[in-house]
Amino acid sequence: MARVIQLYDTTLRDGTQAENFNLSVDDKIKVCRQLDRIGIDFIEGGWPGSNPLAVAFFERMRNVELQHAKLTAFGSTRHFQKPPEADGNIQALLAAKTPAITIFGKSWDIHVIDALRIELEDNLKIIEDSLAYLRPRVQHLIYDAEHFFDGFKNNREYCLATIGKAIKGGAETVVLCDTNGGTLPHEIPEIMQRVQQFCSEQGARAIRLGIHAHNDSETAVANALMGVHLGANHVQGTINGFGERCGNANLTSIIPALIFKMGLECKVGKRIDQLYTTARMVNELANLPHNRYQPYVGESAFAHKGGVHISAVQRNPMTYEHIAPEKVGNIRRVLVSDQSGKANILLKAQKYGLDVHQDDAMVASIVAELKRLENSGYQFEAAEASFELLMRRTMGLHRDFFQLETFRVIHHTFDQHPPVTEATIRLYVDGKEVHTASMGDGPVNALDRALRKALTRFYPGLEDMELVDYKVRVLTGEHGTGAKVRVLVETKDLEKSWGTVGVSVNIIEASWLALVDSINYKLIKDEKNNH
Amino acid sequence: MARVIQLYDTTLRDGTQAENFNLSVDDKIKVCRQLDRIGIDFIEGGWPGSNPLAVAFFERMRNVELQHAKLTAFGSTRHFQKPPEADGNIQALLAAKTPAITIFGKSWDIHVIDALRIELEDNLKIIEDSLAYLRPRVQHLIYDAEHFFDGFKNNREYCLATIGKAIKGGAETVVLCDTNGGTLPHEIPEIMQRVQQFCSEQGARAIRLGIHAHNDSETAVANALMGVHLGANHVQGTINGFGERCGNANLTSIIPALIFKMGLECKVGKRIDQLYTTARMVNELANLPHNRYQPYVGESAFAHKGGVHISAVQRNPMTYEHIAPEKVGNIRRVLVSDQSGKANILLKAQKYGLDVHQDDAMVASIVAELKRLENSGYQFEAAEASFELLMRRTMGLHRDFFQLETFRVIHHTFDQHPPVTEATIRLYVDGKEVHTASMGDGPVNALDRALRKALTRFYPGLEDMELVDYKVRVLTGEHGTGAKVRVLVETKDLEKSWGTVGVSVNIIEASWLALVDSINYKLIKDEKNNH
Repeated sequence: MARVIQLYDTTLRDGTQAENFNLSVDDKIKVCRQLDRIGIDFIEGGWPGSNPLAVAFFERMRNVELQHAKLTAFGSTRHFQKPPEADGNIQALLAAKTPAITIFGKSWDIHVIDALRIELEDNLKIIEDSLAYLRPRVQHLIYDAEHFFDGFKNNREYCLATIGKAIKGGAETVVLCDTNGGTLPHEIPEIMQRVQQFCSEQGARAIRLGIHAHNDSETAVANALMGVHLGANHVQGTINGFGERCGNANLTSIIPALIFKMGLECKVGKRIDQLYTTARMVNELANLPHNRYQPYVGESAFAHKGGVHISAVQRNPMTYEHIAPEKVGNIRRVLVSDQSGKANILLKAQKYGLDVHQDDAMVASIVAELKRLENSGYQFEAAEASFELLMRRTMGLHRDFFQLETFRVIHHTFDQHPPVTEATIRLYVDGKEVHTASMGDGPVNALDRALRKALTRFYPGLEDMELVDYKVRVLTGEHGTGAKVRVLVETKDLEKSWGTVGVSVNIIEASWLALVDSINYKLIKDEKNNH
Repeated sequence: MARVIQLYDTTLRDGTQAENFNLSVDDKIKVCRQLDRIGIDFIEGGWPGSNPLAVAFFERMRNVELQHAKLTAFGSTRHFQKPPEADGNIQALLAAKTPAITIFGKSWDIHVIDALRIELEDNLKIIEDSLAYLRPRVQHLIYDAEHFFDGFKNNREYCLATIGKAIKGGAETVVLCDTNGGTLPHEIPEIMQRVQQFCSEQGARAIRLGIHAHNDSETAVANALMGVHLGANHVQGTINGFGERCGNANLTSIIPALIFKMGLECKVGKRIDQLYTTARMVNELANLPHNRYQPYVGESAFAHKGGVHISAVQRNPMTYEHIAPEKVGNIRRVLVSDQSGKANILLKAQKYGLDVHQDDAMVASIVAELKRLENSGYQFEAAEASFELLMRRTMGLHRDFFQLETFRVIHHTFDQHPPVTEATIRLYVDGKEVHTASMGDGPVNALDRALRKALTRFYPGLEDMELVDYKVRVLTGEHGTGAKVRVLVETKDLEKSWGTVGVSVNIIEASWLALVDSINYKLIKDEKNNH
């Protein structure tokens, strides 16, 4: 029987300590439901003793039924001057009415002296009492040994004594925390072994050990996995690795390693194929871009560029993939690039539902068109929607949803600051003329608004469309603002997001081309869905 | 004596395999100079046998003198059908005329069969011959054992035999590559020990071992450090961890760990305080956002949010920081106005020849203005000319070379394709009105031309000025073309080049601000030169 590893998520508490990562109470509830759905064991919801939003969250959660996960309230040991029954922080933990409570205490003597400013002995006392008071009052009781690794390096006897007190107080799990994230993986074996020996000496051989790592040395995932490899049966982390400073150990990398590489069991099990969706969802709720390079769940994680790699992967995916992307709900992407040939085009055609065959002359036409555009500065790596449109156009499947007559963009500094730009547009849809105008924060924004204003009455689906990113790059080897520019636009609707591209010496023209591709892609997509 | 570790950077080769990470030849030369400046031992410049851009780069590099780093050309073992003297790839390596060559070969039997499609014996032969042919023809010869860890797990005897051939062929360094990034740190000790034992058995105990790790399991830095801990004296990686799929081992996390945590030596030594600048520069050149959560060099890496953390850090920084941020050129960030900027400002003032002293109230004013602008989206890393102007403005040293009355930009699609944009401008110089206009390839180009046309009669030095780069970035966390944009402009004259920046919700406004800074900087510079 494989060891079973408990998964403990702290996205809602440590995660939200990250700069720029914020979740509303509603968002937190959505995250909670998803974490429960995939099989996380413990969900740390917040620190009710220090944060009124956490109190509100726990209150709302009383009406939310979780299938499997145990909601957890987080807080510190009692204040030295106050008994547990009079300590606001301890009482707030109980008031949260969660099935699990996690108490953190100081393991590092320097912190006891410089941060708590109490005697070393007194710290031992508050650890034991706080836990002993809570033990009969809650179902699951976890102890986070803050700064355990730094404490161990500085004063190992004292550090071990603190966890001895936690065990005596009634902790069922003792979590070794690398709070400052300074520990490297090769340091962990000696420390883990000493802790295990200490637990045996205390007659607590059966105590569950956990690990909580931070990413300040870029080794949080490694440290967590090393801890588990050496016997920890409880691992803490966050979705996408959000957390204080450089972040916490990333569960989206830890969970697949446990399951696929270390042969261990956890409740996530087969729902590991929802990993990609879960990672994306947390970013969407926090309104942050998804990190394309993120292991397992990034868009580039299984993307292949070079021709040699592509042909090898097609013969045998394991040649350049450490696991099969479908296992975590991700997909293989073969990047369109100069090096790409026929095989790539056929794969894409299949994906888009286009009827192209190996021996078709069409393949050569598509390759030729692709090369012509790439030579003039196009790049389809981040603009697959434009590539699909290119294929359709070459195959004669293009459809004009409108005919542009003219547009004009005017920007002047007369009236206001920052100045506003105006765009006018005249176009035809099914022979009907539309002539309209819009203001915007800049030429592209004005043009985008005017174009959508003109078209939405004919194509109401455009209302769900939103531009999420806009990038401009001056193509190299030319000079300054007179050079060609490549514009990449990313758009989303309620279902998905897609990238389009435009190239011109004129930034407005390039932006226009990318905008029009984006709209065409959306309209084709909507047509397909309606059939 | 501490062990000395060789640092091998592959940002320009493996790095540029990352999706969306592209560098022009000029950018690559800039990166090279910076890597040389900080003390990287080997800089892998590209694969001349597979990429014409790499050939151009190596050609350009013949006129660039590096102080310390050895430029390295990368390529595969010879084709099985061709002797080295007739193998295009091998000959391209020699034609690159670099002091170092790295040859990669297959270690994993599956790859020999499925990718190379040759016999296992034949692979051994081409490894040995390719190296033996190159050995007398190049100063440093390195062997990258591709897929070494996967190969070892699948067929350890064959895998070891491949590196035996590399040693016999004359490799001075054998680099164990985790090409697919699937290896976890706890697997490394057994493999490293077996390799070391094998090298001893071959009588090659002194062979230098290296490690090249990929980040598909989010353990690349950990794996690299684990390799070094176990005896590898050569470590490969990239700045900011760019590379194929999820990236390569991140040198900006590896180098400080070697120096500050593992007590090892490398040539970077004291220049480690340029780590932050180096990381930032590579992102700026590639026009990518700097990852705020990046260990050591991210903006959040030493940022403290909670009140408890801040007061603890102020009493004793090591309470919540694994190393001191200044060591890597980063700064501590806390919400209260801090000292961090001061030293920096004084340094810059000295550099610009501005009279500012430690206790000057002016320093605080400059810090305040800097913070205000940074909060509104400004970034001065790649725009030092704008920063100098900011200091001058705050110190009351600003001079208006002209007064803008209005400008207007009109773009329409009526006449020609690609469409042309027109800018008109009205301004005053010394009370004299100038009202002029210019066409351009786009709004910014038209505006730039009109502005210079208006000013050149008064300031003939502007004729030597040329815009060399123009970059636009949409600031994150907002939506599409309606979000704020940051424009970076790089300008040069006959003497030097300088960067300026502008931020606005309107791309034309932002561009205008950057253009005006660029012109002001040029005029101040010319005045200084004439005195």
